Amino acid sequence: MTQKLNPAECAKLLGELAGWSMAEDGRAIERAFRFANFVEAFAFMTKVAMRAEKMNHHPEWSNVYGRVTIRLTTHDAGGLTERDAKLARAIDQLAG
Amino acid sequence: MTQKLNPAECAKLLGELAGWSMAEDGRAIERAFRFANFVEAFAFMTKVAMRAEKMNHHPEWSNVYGRVTIRLTTHDAGGLTERDAKLARAIDQLAG
Repeated sequence: MTQKLNPAECAKLLGELAGWSMAEDGRAIERAFRFANFVEAFAFMTKVAMRAEKMNHHPEWSNVYGRVTIRLTTHDAGGLTERDAKLARAIDQLAG
Repeated sequence: MTQKLNPAECAKLLGELAGWSMAEDGRAIERAFRFANFVEAFAFMTKVAMRAEKMNHHPEWSNVYGRVTIRLTTHDAGGLTERDAKLARAIDQLAG
């Protein structure tokens, strides 16, 4: 679960996750979400926060009005793991 | 209210607001807050979100686990205004 994904596994994951891309440092995946306004954006963030806490795996994220940018990585592994993949899928589901 | 603060007013504001500093671009003030964990950090963010929405003035912010970094600026004015000062004071109060 917390074993770092190898390059082939990373490529496969990015193929599955539409909208996500590899971060410049190659250690994380990133996606930007846009909402109509701040309330919509923060409502989404609240849903993600609950899920992340439940999964005990947390995003690095930022918000400017209706825009939410999320970066997922597993610090303990020094890169991407199945935990990031699982959280990314959950986030996509919550984004609707 | 949305008139850009002049350099003297900015300096006065930063003197009042302990913990806040001028952003590198000179157009915003920034402060980092640290909490014991993600739940504490997001609880703080939720309080700030409610207040910001009520004030119709929103932060640019990011979160990594227990850390929340906030940047305040007034886009319409191209820099700092009294609206940022007011939100900064409210945020400090919410941080306790």
